[in-house]
Amino acid sequence: MLRCDLTCLSVRGPGDTAGLEALIERGAIDPAHIVAVMGKTEGNGCVNDFTREYAAGALAALLARHLRVEADEVQRRIAFVMSGGTEGVLSPHITLFTRRPAGAHERTAGKRLAIGMAFTRDFLPEEIGRHPQIHETARAVRAAMADAGITTPGDVHFVQVKCPLLTSSRIAAALARGRSTATQDTYESMALSRGASALGIGLATGEIAESALCDEAVLRDAWLASSVASTSAGIELLHNVVIVLGMSGTATGPLVIAHDVMRDAIDAAAIHRALASLGIDPADAGERVVNVFAKAEASPDGLVRGSRHTMLNDSDIHSTRHARAAVGAVIASVVGRTAIYVSGGAEHQGPPGGGPVAVVARR
Amino acid sequence: MLRCDLTCLSVRGPGDTAGLEALIERGAIDPAHIVAVMGKTEGNGCVNDFTREYAAGALAALLARHLRVEADEVQRRIAFVMSGGTEGVLSPHITLFTRRPAGAHERTAGKRLAIGMAFTRDFLPEEIGRHPQIHETARAVRAAMADAGITTPGDVHFVQVKCPLLTSSRIAAALARGRSTATQDTYESMALSRGASALGIGLATGEIAESALCDEAVLRDAWLASSVASTSAGIELLHNVVIVLGMSGTATGPLVIAHDVMRDAIDAAAIHRALASLGIDPADAGERVVNVFAKAEASPDGLVRGSRHTMLNDSDIHSTRHARAAVGAVIASVVGRTAIYVSGGAEHQGPPGGGPVAVVARR
Amino acid sequence: MLRCDLTCLSVRGPGDTAGLEALIERGAIDPAHIVAVMGKTEGNGCVNDFTREYAAGALAALLARHLRVEADEVQRRIAFVMSGGTEGVLSPHITLFTRRPAGAHERTAGKRLAIGMAFTRDFLPEEIGRHPQIHETARAVRAAMADAGITTPGDVHFVQVKCPLLTSSRIAAALARGRSTATQDTYESMALSRGASALGIGLATGEIAESALCDEAVLRDAWLASSVASTSAGIELLHNVVIVLGMSGTATGPLVIAHDVMRDAIDAAAIHRALASLGIDPADAGERVVNVFAKAEASPDGLVRGSRHTMLNDSDIHSTRHARAAVGAVIASVVGRTAIYVSGGAEHQGPPGGGPVAVVARR
Amino acid sequence: MLRCDLTCLSVRGPGDTAGLEALIERGAIDPAHIVAVMGKTEGNGCVNDFTREYAAGALAALLARHLRVEADEVQRRIAFVMSGGTEGVLSPHITLFTRRPAGAHERTAGKRLAIGMAFTRDFLPEEIGRHPQIHETARAVRAAMADAGITTPGDVHFVQVKCPLLTSSRIAAALARGRSTATQDTYESMALSRGASALGIGLATGEIAESALCDEAVLRDAWLASSVASTSAGIELLHNVVIVLGMSGTATGPLVIAHDVMRDAIDAAAIHRALASLGIDPADAGERVVNVFAKAEASPDGLVRGSRHTMLNDSDIHSTRHARAAVGAVIASVVGRTAIYVSGGAEHQGPPGGGPVAVVARR
Repeated sequence: MLRCDLTCLSVRGPGDTAGLEALIERGAIDPAHIVAVMGKTEGNGCVNDFTREYAAGALAALLARHLRVEADEVQRRIAFVMSGGTEGVLSPHITLFTRRPAGAHERTAGKRLAIGMAFTRDFLPEEIGRHPQIHETARAVRAAMADAGITTPGDVHFVQVKCPLLTSSRIAAALARGRSTATQDTYESMALSRGASALGIGLATGEIAESALCDEAVLRDAWLASSVASTSAGIELLHNVVIVLGMSGTATGPLVIAHDVMRDAIDAAAIHRALASLGIDPADAGERVVNVFAKAEASPDGLVRGSRHTMLNDSDIHSTRHARAAVGAVIASVVGRTAIYVSGGAEHQGPPGGGPVAVVARR
Repeated sequence: MLRCDLTCLSVRGPGDTAGLEALIERGAIDPAHIVAVMGKTEGNGCVNDFTREYAAGALAALLARHLRVEADEVQRRIAFVMSGGTEGVLSPHITLFTRRPAGAHERTAGKRLAIGMAFTRDFLPEEIGRHPQIHETARAVRAAMADAGITTPGDVHFVQVKCPLLTSSRIAAALARGRSTATQDTYESMALSRGASALGIGLATGEIAESALCDEAVLRDAWLASSVASTSAGIELLHNVVIVLGMSGTATGPLVIAHDVMRDAIDAAAIHRALASLGIDPADAGERVVNVFAKAEASPDGLVRGSRHTMLNDSDIHSTRHARAAVGAVIASVVGRTAIYVSGGAEHQGPPGGGPVAVVARR
Repeated sequence: MLRCDLTCLSVRGPGDTAGLEALIERGAIDPAHIVAVMGKTEGNGCVNDFTREYAAGALAALLARHLRVEADEVQRRIAFVMSGGTEGVLSPHITLFTRRPAGAHERTAGKRLAIGMAFTRDFLPEEIGRHPQIHETARAVRAAMADAGITTPGDVHFVQVKCPLLTSSRIAAALARGRSTATQDTYESMALSRGASALGIGLATGEIAESALCDEAVLRDAWLASSVASTSAGIELLHNVVIVLGMSGTATGPLVIAHDVMRDAIDAAAIHRALASLGIDPADAGERVVNVFAKAEASPDGLVRGSRHTMLNDSDIHSTRHARAAVGAVIASVVGRTAIYVSGGAEHQGPPGGGPVAVVARR
Repeated sequence: MLRCDLTCLSVRGPGDTAGLEALIERGAIDPAHIVAVMGKTEGNGCVNDFTREYAAGALAALLARHLRVEADEVQRRIAFVMSGGTEGVLSPHITLFTRRPAGAHERTAGKRLAIGMAFTRDFLPEEIGRHPQIHETARAVRAAMADAGITTPGDVHFVQVKCPLLTSSRIAAALARGRSTATQDTYESMALSRGASALGIGLATGEIAESALCDEAVLRDAWLASSVASTSAGIELLHNVVIVLGMSGTATGPLVIAHDVMRDAIDAAAIHRALASLGIDPADAGERVVNVFAKAEASPDGLVRGSRHTMLNDSDIHSTRHARAAVGAVIASVVGRTAIYVSGGAEHQGPPGGGPVAVVARR
């Protein structure tokens, strides 16, 4: 039986590791138990946001010191998923995911929050954004479910994937071997990789039928989506890292998780439903909720509840920044806390203009 | 008895007057009945936002044609309050406030939405942001209440003031007469003028005691505030224009109004209370709510519910833009519509980091 | 013989028409002689820049009053080319192009600045960004040269084209007729239309060989370019408007024009050469130069003189804004004035990362 | 005799230390000889620019490894001055300043580039932005001149100062001792500290008379300025760090330095004069110039050469970003390189709207 925990720490800036250091030094966290770190950093969340790598690097350096390994090794052992952009009320923070064998006295009855991880093999450039990435991701999701002791897709509530992107040299390498990549545009490759990964998640959970998938499905049919997928692309890896959060009878600890789907950026009802399924009265949410994980995007049809929005036409502020500000505030207004994880870019992650929202709470 | 109405029109851009023109041409609106126009335009809402004057100018030109007067005369007769910034889900729109004598068959029992207007005298530059502006505003608010047939401060639910600012030449003119102005910084003069106007509103409604006011009160004690004030400064006038929205037994029509105070940017409960006081079930809000009027600001202490926000340190996006995105989304998530009026810069308008929110709805 | 003039007016904002009104009222400009107005307005120059239409509308309304025609008719008679974005030192201004029959006493020997105009037919949606637009533009450039009395391509120094773009409904209309458009992305259609128009200019001037052109050439071969082209796309028209500036023996007046090509954003030598070809000592440039017309873009290979620039990766400031700030400052530093026309988006207009620069000066 | 060198390294991002690592590993740079590092990083250069601390931290960590000391100790030994903002053509890079005893065979006749450093004592909060900071800075400048072997103020060409700022807790600490600080606004304290430091430099060089200085002089009289001052405020220190670059007969090496003052943002002539004083033909500048150090600001009177600029009214892009883009491009257009140091915020550093520009070149 495994004991799984989430620890949410406020930070004073992207380079602030003092909170984690204090927890380690007073023995509250054993760095060897950390399996993943997800964070919101205060950059723009777009191309030139260096707060993500700055934060991940600073945390890895600290953990390397305490684990007495190289920082590179830390980044291989622990999945760092830093999401830039704390627009509006969103508060910069990191969430530590820990997992350890539970002591005999810690055993609990009923299902509890379980964390599982798995990796795909490295992808060839021509596989990114296409079938192989979809299917390998599905396989890894199933492996991560098994790792977490989750036996049914209905117990999967949030799947975070970190996936690779195409660079000019990766595209050239494929061409040199006589293969063409799904796109020659490196920026578009991020969306394709996120989209294929999300489709792979949906395939594993049974939300998406194998027959509905073709290479052309990626980024084409926006309604083909997983309600538990959250994917982000990064330059530092060639494979997919999969983190599954769900409920398992072989997990123990004080935490539980549930999710729902926001159909648009102002769908507060979805968050209320997720709370209700955990038996949380909104008035107690501030006390019981440990964190919320959600995806946000500007509705691609230019409308929210039938009225025009201007997020997609704003050349001063990127639409993902608008979307995080809006969705973050809506969720915060329901759960009463602003240190929540709301990430932009939701290809195949929930319906167009909406997205998944998962709540981790004390039981 | 007066019949007061609000008509909310979506626009396709700041220069789009086609909606109003169509209403006038098919007789749905008599331009002679329009007393005020409030709008959200899609500029940045800050210094170099020209969408406000563009929209006001286009509407005035259209109304001038229909009223067969000069555009300048239109701007004197009708109060145009254009607020820039439709961040996040906020939808660009205009709200037309009309008022006309009610026909005998239109009389209703009970209080209904009433609209009143009044003007102060022109201010001398040295009076702006100081006692004379506070007291003249209070006097004008009382006059606008009388104009609306509102007999008790408890029936006042929203007071919009448009107030002047200091320019270099106005400051110089005062100096030439041996007088000093409250500030020599033209940008700060906008905040001082908004703040003094808000204090004047609070004085008129009895929310603020005469004894609590001194010149130094303006922008000093952030907790000295009116819960119904919404003020904005503009270069085009030297006096204050006051629009009072409230409930009156001498008004008729299908509309009612209520308000509450958001104590911070995610205080959805305040909006729920305002709806409840009008007997509106949130599920019916989309149908019954005609518009919402609210003020938003980034919490000056850098915290929302105890967690750090980054709105005040963001040198790429002005804090007022963050605040409107957040507050606009929270209100929209409760009332189910995004064409709502959320304006930034809330000096003495509700508590620090919060602000007034007024709901106009069908009865 | 025609007398051609340029009048450059500073403006206090996009809605400021007072300078033109004053010129008309004291008889310095006859509105009937105005053939084109080019301006720099202070918006962001990108998608949601409303200062362009605001400025054009305000000027058209003023001219309509003086010409006693409708504003629509003014926009048909006079070409308004408003370019948004006055980054860095660039100063908002408008340039009036006037043309009238010269009096007998005004005749001069030698070539002088000549202005010619022509229009293409309306384009079908499927023609935009493709061969028909290229060839029709070339034909119109030749017509505009004839209109200006310019007999050799070597006397053409600046060709401004205003061209249409694709909208969703225009794309749908083509599809309904069984035709496909060059792109389904409305934003990309602007680049395609600008690019095809620039290629058409190059075809007319002989800079580009007919044989080098194929549909695929548009936006593909960035080195295929005209050194006198400046093109911008707008939603308000379906045809191309062509303004040719050059030297003609049948023109008279005090003005002359020359041009050169900046090979990158800091190529001050190109501006020095253009001045030299007009016999202008840089020390006298401030006095003799009437205006400069140039295109700017961020070097697509990410380098300027071999060093990395960050313009294309900046998600806070659009690359066109960076490019205008840089190129505008370089030109201003040579000619000693900041009210100059520097416009972004230079597809097929000069070499990648560089662009044409034309100088109009007193003889 | 000391040998002083500058090494300019391009970087691929704020965390990129590979170039320095390579130089150290192949013995081209001895880390023990590095006395200062100045860099341009690609953040916004304003409040929430974390690229400065990220870059400084990464470099310090690398040097700590090679020097076998703690990173903190590195930051004490070596002055890191990171300036954010590479707008327009500016290219991210770092400049390493090294100094070592010269070998007998290295001796040269005539003056060469000399680098000197000195520190003030720690300042009390109430001393910042006031007389004590001014006078202590002047004393440290004289000490740094002595350290560099510079005997006359005429041989000082660039003085970089890193100075402290006020934080809320520093202000409170002063109040607790019954002292008031020059401002209670932490952001304004940066300008005050930069301004006082610049005045101190001017005092040491004799450009500013003791009698012209009073506390009120700081930020009041913008024409009171040093033509060699470049100051920047940081939260990480309580004293001033002073780096003096100049010419000395006791220095050797291949480098020389000269400076001039740009009177406005487009004053290319100043850069030409600086080159000329080093005997550099502009055509050879690309080859001979090692780096340029300059300060930029938006002209506070809103004009450049008499025409209105819009930098100070742009609520989307901070004026310092506009100014760096413009001044950086002008300098780059003269010296033919874009990896140059142009920093914003020029209080008392050159005339209003202008700034010092120093050129380091190979002899």
